Amino acid sequence: MAKAPLATSPLAPERFPNLMPVAGVELAVAETNSRYKGRPDLLLVRLAEGTAAAGVFTRSKAPSAPVDWCRAALAASGGQNVRALIVNAGNANAFTGKAGRAAVDAVATAAADKLGCAANAVMQASTGVIGNPLDPAIITGELDGLLTRFSATDWTLAAAAIRTTDTFPKGACRIAHIDGYPVVLNGIAKGSGMIAPDMATMLAFVFTNAALPAAVLQAILGPAVARTFNCITVDSDTSTSDTLLAFATGVNARHGVIQDASDHRLDDFKAKFEELLCDLAHQVVRDGEGAQKFISITVTGAEDDRAARKIGLSIANSPLVKTAIAGEDANWGRIVMAVGKSGEAADRDKIAIDIGGQPVTRDGMVLPTYDEAKATAHLRGREIAIAVDLGIGNGRAQVWTCDLTHGYISINADYRS
Amino acid sequence: MAKAPLATSPLAPERFPNLMPVAGVELAVAETNSRYKGRPDLLLVRLAEGTAAAGVFTRSKAPSAPVDWCRAALAASGGQNVRALIVNAGNANAFTGKAGRAAVDAVATAAADKLGCAANAVMQASTGVIGNPLDPAIITGELDGLLTRFSATDWTLAAAAIRTTDTFPKGACRIAHIDGYPVVLNGIAKGSGMIAPDMATMLAFVFTNAALPAAVLQAILGPAVARTFNCITVDSDTSTSDTLLAFATGVNARHGVIQDASDHRLDDFKAKFEELLCDLAHQVVRDGEGAQKFISITVTGAEDDRAARKIGLSIANSPLVKTAIAGEDANWGRIVMAVGKSGEAADRDKIAIDIGGQPVTRDGMVLPTYDEAKATAHLRGREIAIAVDLGIGNGRAQVWTCDLTHGYISINADYRS
Repeated sequence: MAKAPLATSPLAPERFPNLMPVAGVELAVAETNSRYKGRPDLLLVRLAEGTAAAGVFTRSKAPSAPVDWCRAALAASGGQNVRALIVNAGNANAFTGKAGRAAVDAVATAAADKLGCAANAVMQASTGVIGNPLDPAIITGELDGLLTRFSATDWTLAAAAIRTTDTFPKGACRIAHIDGYPVVLNGIAKGSGMIAPDMATMLAFVFTNAALPAAVLQAILGPAVARTFNCITVDSDTSTSDTLLAFATGVNARHGVIQDASDHRLDDFKAKFEELLCDLAHQVVRDGEGAQKFISITVTGAEDDRAARKIGLSIANSPLVKTAIAGEDANWGRIVMAVGKSGEAADRDKIAIDIGGQPVTRDGMVLPTYDEAKATAHLRGREIAIAVDLGIGNGRAQVWTCDLTHGYISINADYRS
Repeated sequence: MAKAPLATSPLAPERFPNLMPVAGVELAVAETNSRYKGRPDLLLVRLAEGTAAAGVFTRSKAPSAPVDWCRAALAASGGQNVRALIVNAGNANAFTGKAGRAAVDAVATAAADKLGCAANAVMQASTGVIGNPLDPAIITGELDGLLTRFSATDWTLAAAAIRTTDTFPKGACRIAHIDGYPVVLNGIAKGSGMIAPDMATMLAFVFTNAALPAAVLQAILGPAVARTFNCITVDSDTSTSDTLLAFATGVNARHGVIQDASDHRLDDFKAKFEELLCDLAHQVVRDGEGAQKFISITVTGAEDDRAARKIGLSIANSPLVKTAIAGEDANWGRIVMAVGKSGEAADRDKIAIDIGGQPVTRDGMVLPTYDEAKATAHLRGREIAIAVDLGIGNGRAQVWTCDLTHGYISINADYRS
């Protein structure tokens, strides 16, 4: 089953960022040597007593067993006093029927026993192949060893352990101020294919030592996800396992008590939280399977923000747009096609397209001043900017995707073998 | 601009079928040597006086100038006494602004003048690159020559003249009986990429010598398209130019007068009409860019037929399903993923999947009897059958697609150069 690791994406950040410790968060990883050999593929995060949690999950009608588990556990606990997160890579425990449910039960019970907490306080996420039964012993057999290895600083290992086809570990760190006092925000994520979030995407975990009620954390999470993870796409396929969990330990938080998500003392925290999610979401796109170019699509002048996002994703999901960019071909007619197929209001004769900042079309046709050689030069780069103005309203959105290349086909035509 | 022709699709029919003459229909082709060199790329069809016409067109919000033209012309004439069809390949005359409208006006006026009919009696379709101005002289300059070359039998040439990236010409022929009397039904089509009909697809033209009012022809066309062209997809991209026109000349039709589409004397005609559209639609999929496998997806047990079609297209449009099939990998988990992301009602634990007639999953998990080697053997063939039963209703649909291969990337990463 072992395959040679894929070459690191050319769009990867130069290095994994420096992640500071988050008070109340301890990390441990293990190598289960099940699907992947000789690399960490299991992560246990221990969270301080009193940690609040919030989550958003895939809208798939066929969610994985861990997604079902987390939804139910958060509903039961109200997101209060969540004590652990367990993530395994290689097997998604999705479409595994009763055996899948039994596996998450067994893992939660064993971990709760070792950690001295309620089973409902153990969050779980799994990523990998869909449809293979997951033997819980692969995870529970590692628990004793994991408990001896906790560290506050092993964020690179933690981010590495949750990878599947990812070519680089994804992390981000911000310092936010609440009430004048600093709190740390750390995030790790995995994702490379099956990326078209319809809620959260892939797996992403955010940890902060801010002291926030679960309801406030949840209220901050939703809108931030809408503008970040829900605005990226690699291949238009939505995972059964999409999970984004945020944890607030409250350890060493010196700011005052906050009970309301609209409290202005949270303004900087919210901004940094969204910035962190955006950073992680972009890293997911930069590791899009086979990606050679990172594409930012800005849509303005749409009927409303919702329409702008739908038009943006219609462009971002178009195989013909993505292959044209892969081929460094300024085939802007395909952008028109993608706007047209979105189903959203558009007036063909008002659509204005810019590529790399250069005006290409105005009033429904190509400009006499348009310089295709200049557009092609832009497309030869790694960072591609497309802007579309509909000219009919004030709706705007930004979405991000990558190009569609031979690499995507090679990776996915034989993922399991 | 000339490129080496692509190798013929391995899924192509063995040969172009025998198309009989259709009384009242004459064909002529020309080589304009504009985008394509040394091959016919312009088709003129002359239709007998009194020909009725019906059409369905792309739902794109940015339709081509010929689509706008045909819609307006059919509305003005009521589809009565349509006298000509002109199709050019290489330039879609889409997103060409006022110049595009002027071009279709000029072509219609010139052709009407030569043929002695109203400009509104001239239907037009264009296929090819989006966004390049179309010089009408390329077409009008050929009219005199075309008028000298009419033939009732040059169907292969006609089908060849409307191709762009198509690797084989597409045609179909049926004999239907109305009232006990035979009529001929011929169809030609083009299409290979940008195939995700949201109405009709690509270009397809059907000719019959049946004598039918335009309203009856239109009433037959709609439902037949819904079950054929609107159930295929190659790449989820919807063309700006999708056009399906049907023409009924009434020449040599010996059946009685029919005023109502629900007249049972039309039962055989309707069945053959739909069969013909299905044949052409399948040929379009068989020529899907880079296609190596023809995939039939049958969805049953859905909430209703609409839901079944949406689920079927969600599977058919999934890059991960299509690349797995390209890789002959029985990764049925991706089918579950695609059902889940469709947004339609599903109960994960009732989804039943069959591949090549072999039951794979029941009750939300893989069967112990499932033989992956057998599924892989099926996927090594050219004709792939996937069946999904949702187990919650009576809705059903069948959709067709092809696999997603390196060939698709190669063709589309550099289509214009």
